[in-house]
Amino acid sequence: MVKTYSLENIARKLNISIKDLNKAFKKKIIREDEFKNIRYLLFKKNFKNIEKGTVVILNEQLDIIRGYPKTYRALTLYPTIKEHFIDKVVIEEKLNGYNIRVAKIDDEILALTRSGYVCPFTTKKVKKYLKLEILDEYEHYMLCGEMIGKNNPYVPFYYEEAENDVENLAFFIFDIKERENNRSLPIKDRLKLCENYNLPHVRPIDIVDKDKAHEVIKDIIIELNNKRREGVVLKDPDMSVEPLKYTTHFINCQDLKEAFYFLFDLGLDFMFSRVIREGFMSYEFGECLEDREIRAIDIGKSILFPMVEAIEKVAKGERITEDFELIFDSENDFSEFLDFMRKMKMIIKIKNIERKEDRLKVLIGKVYNKTSDKIKAYLEGALWE
Amino acid sequence: MVKTYSLENIARKLNISIKDLNKAFKKKIIREDEFKNIRYLLFKKNFKNIEKGTVVILNEQLDIIRGYPKTYRALTLYPTIKEHFIDKVVIEEKLNGYNIRVAKIDDEILALTRSGYVCPFTTKKVKKYLKLEILDEYEHYMLCGEMIGKNNPYVPFYYEEAENDVENLAFFIFDIKERENNRSLPIKDRLKLCENYNLPHVRPIDIVDKDKAHEVIKDIIIELNNKRREGVVLKDPDMSVEPLKYTTHFINCQDLKEAFYFLFDLGLDFMFSRVIREGFMSYEFGECLEDREIRAIDIGKSILFPMVEAIEKVAKGERITEDFELIFDSENDFSEFLDFMRKMKMIIKIKNIERKEDRLKVLIGKVYNKTSDKIKAYLEGALWE
Repeated sequence: MVKTYSLENIARKLNISIKDLNKAFKKKIIREDEFKNIRYLLFKKNFKNIEKGTVVILNEQLDIIRGYPKTYRALTLYPTIKEHFIDKVVIEEKLNGYNIRVAKIDDEILALTRSGYVCPFTTKKVKKYLKLEILDEYEHYMLCGEMIGKNNPYVPFYYEEAENDVENLAFFIFDIKERENNRSLPIKDRLKLCENYNLPHVRPIDIVDKDKAHEVIKDIIIELNNKRREGVVLKDPDMSVEPLKYTTHFINCQDLKEAFYFLFDLGLDFMFSRVIREGFMSYEFGECLEDREIRAIDIGKSILFPMVEAIEKVAKGERITEDFELIFDSENDFSEFLDFMRKMKMIIKIKNIERKEDRLKVLIGKVYNKTSDKIKAYLEGALWE
Repeated sequence: MVKTYSLENIARKLNISIKDLNKAFKKKIIREDEFKNIRYLLFKKNFKNIEKGTVVILNEQLDIIRGYPKTYRALTLYPTIKEHFIDKVVIEEKLNGYNIRVAKIDDEILALTRSGYVCPFTTKKVKKYLKLEILDEYEHYMLCGEMIGKNNPYVPFYYEEAENDVENLAFFIFDIKERENNRSLPIKDRLKLCENYNLPHVRPIDIVDKDKAHEVIKDIIIELNNKRREGVVLKDPDMSVEPLKYTTHFINCQDLKEAFYFLFDLGLDFMFSRVIREGFMSYEFGECLEDREIRAIDIGKSILFPMVEAIEKVAKGERITEDFELIFDSENDFSEFLDFMRKMKMIIKIKNIERKEDRLKVLIGKVYNKTSDKIKAYLEGALWE
């Protein structure tokens, strides 16, 4: 692989100095990767004005696909929303999947994960399920959205609306951005474009005044919680201020369950933040003692039960895995995906393969070694420091 | 304060090289402190063979008081105890107070906290409540024990057996060590000495074969849990291997309550470790679903309720404090204690003072600024990153 490219041109495109660019290389903030014949640089962290997940394609014009910015969280609805927004607030549902940016570069559709890798699995699915003429006409746009459903290798979570003949998987656009400067289209324009091009997209639940938003959103959150869904993203109609997110009790507990099943692999911050959210929600929603007790019971069970389940599993001699059922259209797609997993340094175990016509249905286990090893050690008498 | 002392002599007494001693000074592992006219060096961390909390008195003979070693924890009773011990296991109750070493240096009784500071409050109380002739005869011993009861500035936890006419505070010896080399007396010898000198001490609950210990201890733990007590420390009769500890569900939940009341001050490790203990206990005790649910409810409530209580308190404009009621025998004792708190960089607030005869009853609040400030910020609309 030839590794020469003009640092000067890249720095100019990214609007940083050559010195800073070199620094980013030295600190290993930038890594080089390729997908098919497309080589690209990838920012593994936020650096200067450049978002984590930003990609510079090493073609002649050095096309850029900027990283999707972090969405901050409101711990309280009031006064956070009132303080943050200008006037009106658009309420959209937050879907529980994985963030994807779709762009077209040199006639090739690419689907990038949050961290900036071109995911061959997702790229295939996006091309299969979406008609992407929009990117012929608006080559400088990227379609940002959530890939949801049970049959994906990142966040397997069932959605009714993701169901099709073959699998539970779908892509919903929630943002269209200029891929070189990360500017979002106003929400109206995004909705119009999605409708014109017949693209699946997230629709606003409501548009409200910022002063009343907390009341409306509280009701929406309660409803979404009852439907076992994740939460909301709040946006300025013109996308002039950054969006905010707020999630349901249901998803906080789901996250806790996951965290305590993979208890030595997921970070303490992950666990702690979910619990904190529950505290502020319980306070803000002004629960009666009975409701607060129900919330506490949910939290306690979400922590204890998955943990004991994991310990019991290891005690039986098994290892802790997270299982994904994926559908591939060919052996070649499957092997491409396995190469990608290897590149991502995921340790996976193929648990089952079913072939139907040309299609493959594969059950894959992502192995959580740290959790498996540590539980085993403690069960064998290792001391806790 | 004259700061000259012979590094060579100190290094020799500590059995480390001068080079290492200098390194410890440079890395600020050693700090200098004084109590009355006694100057001493203090190890703030484990360093080489020297335990955290080790003190070198800067007198002519450079007396040493070694730090009390960390007691490791069994996450499972079986097979941990069987693997760890030689033959017999002495089961003692673990009291929930603070670890103190008492030594006599140059005719002065000193009570050192775990971290190695001479605590004026504790020194006074130890001298008041104990007859310490033993240290005249055995000048090279230190009495290691737990200071327990509601009326102390570190771990205010009520014990029936700590009650006296004036306050709820008592000292129980659980170990006698040679203070210069940290060698423990065999348990029999410790018990005999304590009885001869009429010193309050922790008595063995039972002595069992290591192969059966887990069964006996499980029953003891269930009983201690019902009595709302902390747990057990397991020891080799000759103190030839390090002790182990194991705690009750009750105290795990107590710790969680504390952690989530002071939610941004106590470390995540503190919270996480308590929860992990519950997981292994629930597994090992082979609970039925009903009992496991009760445990989960206790955990959930111990997390959510104190957290909401703290948020409600801050929402009302108050700050989060931990309150201690302390008894001082004179104004001078009180002011000495305040100086010590200042030195420890504790932020305290005097909430009330009652004077009775010569005695002072003082209500002191330890202020948790980080918790107070962060909750306030989130209530005012700060975003969660």
